[in-house]
Amino acid sequence: MSLIVQKYGGTSVADLERIRNVAKRIAKTYEQGHQVVVILSAMAGITDHLIDMARDVTESPDKRELDVLLATGEQTTSALLAMTLKSMKYPAQSLLGHQAEVLTDHSYGNARIIDIRAEKIKELLSDRQIVVVAGFQGCDPDGNITTLGRGGSDTSAVAIAAAVNADVCEIYTDVDGIYTADPNICDKARKLSVISYDEMLNMASLGAKVLQIRSVGFAKKYNIPVHVRSSFTEEEGTMVVNENSGMERLIVSSVTHDKNQARITLKKVPDQPGVAAKIFTPIAEEGIVVDMIIQNTRAGGKTDLTFTVPRVNYKSALKMQKKIAEEIGAEDVFGDENIAKVSVVGVGMRDHSGVASTMFTALAKENINIMMISTSEIRISCVIEEKYTELAVRVLHTAFGLDKE
Amino acid sequence: MSLIVQKYGGTSVADLERIRNVAKRIAKTYEQGHQVVVILSAMAGITDHLIDMARDVTESPDKRELDVLLATGEQTTSALLAMTLKSMKYPAQSLLGHQAEVLTDHSYGNARIIDIRAEKIKELLSDRQIVVVAGFQGCDPDGNITTLGRGGSDTSAVAIAAAVNADVCEIYTDVDGIYTADPNICDKARKLSVISYDEMLNMASLGAKVLQIRSVGFAKKYNIPVHVRSSFTEEEGTMVVNENSGMERLIVSSVTHDKNQARITLKKVPDQPGVAAKIFTPIAEEGIVVDMIIQNTRAGGKTDLTFTVPRVNYKSALKMQKKIAEEIGAEDVFGDENIAKVSVVGVGMRDHSGVASTMFTALAKENINIMMISTSEIRISCVIEEKYTELAVRVLHTAFGLDKE
Repeated sequence: MSLIVQKYGGTSVADLERIRNVAKRIAKTYEQGHQVVVILSAMAGITDHLIDMARDVTESPDKRELDVLLATGEQTTSALLAMTLKSMKYPAQSLLGHQAEVLTDHSYGNARIIDIRAEKIKELLSDRQIVVVAGFQGCDPDGNITTLGRGGSDTSAVAIAAAVNADVCEIYTDVDGIYTADPNICDKARKLSVISYDEMLNMASLGAKVLQIRSVGFAKKYNIPVHVRSSFTEEEGTMVVNENSGMERLIVSSVTHDKNQARITLKKVPDQPGVAAKIFTPIAEEGIVVDMIIQNTRAGGKTDLTFTVPRVNYKSALKMQKKIAEEIGAEDVFGDENIAKVSVVGVGMRDHSGVASTMFTALAKENINIMMISTSEIRISCVIEEKYTELAVRVLHTAFGLDKE
Repeated sequence: MSLIVQKYGGTSVADLERIRNVAKRIAKTYEQGHQVVVILSAMAGITDHLIDMARDVTESPDKRELDVLLATGEQTTSALLAMTLKSMKYPAQSLLGHQAEVLTDHSYGNARIIDIRAEKIKELLSDRQIVVVAGFQGCDPDGNITTLGRGGSDTSAVAIAAAVNADVCEIYTDVDGIYTADPNICDKARKLSVISYDEMLNMASLGAKVLQIRSVGFAKKYNIPVHVRSSFTEEEGTMVVNENSGMERLIVSSVTHDKNQARITLKKVPDQPGVAAKIFTPIAEEGIVVDMIIQNTRAGGKTDLTFTVPRVNYKSALKMQKKIAEEIGAEDVFGDENIAKVSVVGVGMRDHSGVASTMFTALAKENINIMMISTSEIRISCVIEEKYTELAVRVLHTAFGLDKE
């Protein structure tokens, strides 16, 4: 007998018919003798609908009240699923965020989980109940309702799995696992049976499409095996686990890409202490996330500085930097929206040299120019011209031996 | 400066435009220097929609989970209203049932309020906040969400008014007050400026259309003046108050009618101890509310027994009685769905004789036969043939001097 946490995303509970199917899947797991905790998202589209409603009230709705409004989405699906299970004669009970004791900080709209006491969940489990928890929501120490941000139900699921010491956290979604590359642009991409937490964390956009990145950090911290799989098939998906758990070691396990990027360059910035702070503080204050930063040393006490920002923030960041450039005496500011980032990710890199050179050689062979490079312990990313994105993903996929037979 | 509790019903918050209007009305009260607590219903139609959704899942949805589902209705309007007030630069905060500490018993779907600590409400009020409370919902001592039954937001409002010691509880609804009779059938009916708790309690259906009867009991117990008025006009409505508070004393203040009745007669019931229990216990167990009961003494140890039930329960009650009649040896059972109950209500009856005779005379003049009579301290009700209902209301309205000039 295992303790299994199952999380179902919005498409899996999009209507009553699908909720019935989810109930059948849960019932099957329960019948096998397992203890089951279910975490639910809102019906697909509902959260957006509620946000639209709030925006009809006012352009910038109060964040506390928006969370109260949004929390109704998961409350609805949780009640409906518990009802469905009970009508099938299974013992089930729904719990809202505060009832499941999902304690968060005060950051409405993007709250962080501080603690999950889960006493009520454990009590219900020991009573052989199926526990249905509304995902995405928690409450702060003052009892205010908070929500965990986009994809927050994944984090709810993993955090609750950690709190109840679950054997596995199954994330049911509309894709059937994690792929070596986006199958839409690389038809030789194949599903990975297993991947490490660190690789998932480094896959950024490719991984984020199936799993909220924050939830992976949680899973890693508490060593919760996460099984990403489809709620529409019986097929196994991808296990996200600790890299020491005997997994097959590919040098590179995936090739990811991100077109949601733009870069800004400041030319001939005076190379003085405090200049970098002047450049990046206003951007941080606007909540704009800077991804890569590259600084070239130049002669004459001047330096060129290039960084990337999400494309949606490009225009405002560029405007900001033009003002800053004047203040600090930089010669010029220019930018480029037509860029993309391609990355190779793999824990095997730690033990293998030559990954960078393989990557650069493969891109060079296709005459793809590399504009920026950044590396982490298990990832190498290159910024290239956007038009080469698909080609770059395919040649790297082949170069690292990831193509399916 | 007063402490004012305002409750807005479903039609008053049916869409964002109406919520904006409600916000303006609240803002006006706040600007006058008053402390304001607002209790909201769900948008008109939403509760029915949610019930339909639950019925699509299963014919008899689990009551606990149904309450979790229904509670989203008031949560939505509360968040939207608080958001609207804040966008207008008024300090406001929404509270759900459990946050407002509306403690109820365990009766899902029809919970009774046990206690309202209201600490959070008081704290927010002393901070000059407008407090927006989701009506209709509470939580039981175990933290489960409960709902208070149809019209429960009225009870929420009056109970919260009692808890915070409000000066007045204003109930905004889609009618502009309590009338001396239903204006749809009696065009001489006029709006009462004031009425006593006891009269409201005795007006049954006529009163229940504007105010949940249970809330009136609460208001009486804690002596909370209730102002029933329309959210669509600025006109004063009807004050429901203690009868000692210097109100104008009409002998009869209203004529009410109820067509939702049917009667069942058992003929020649053996007049033995225990027979009445045998007749009424099975009906009570089915949750059928018996209104009037009349027993005539007859010769030969046999008696006739007649009682009324809601028309919707007529068929099942009749079937039940046919079986019981055989068991207890009654001679015959028959019933009649085409009846109605007309009543005259007024605290002035306590000091005036002749009300019954005026009523019977007025009906007799129109050849309306009286089938059953029942009385309370401040009410006389007659069961008559349904077809005479409108005529009876009009002649009684005139006979007791209620017609407007």
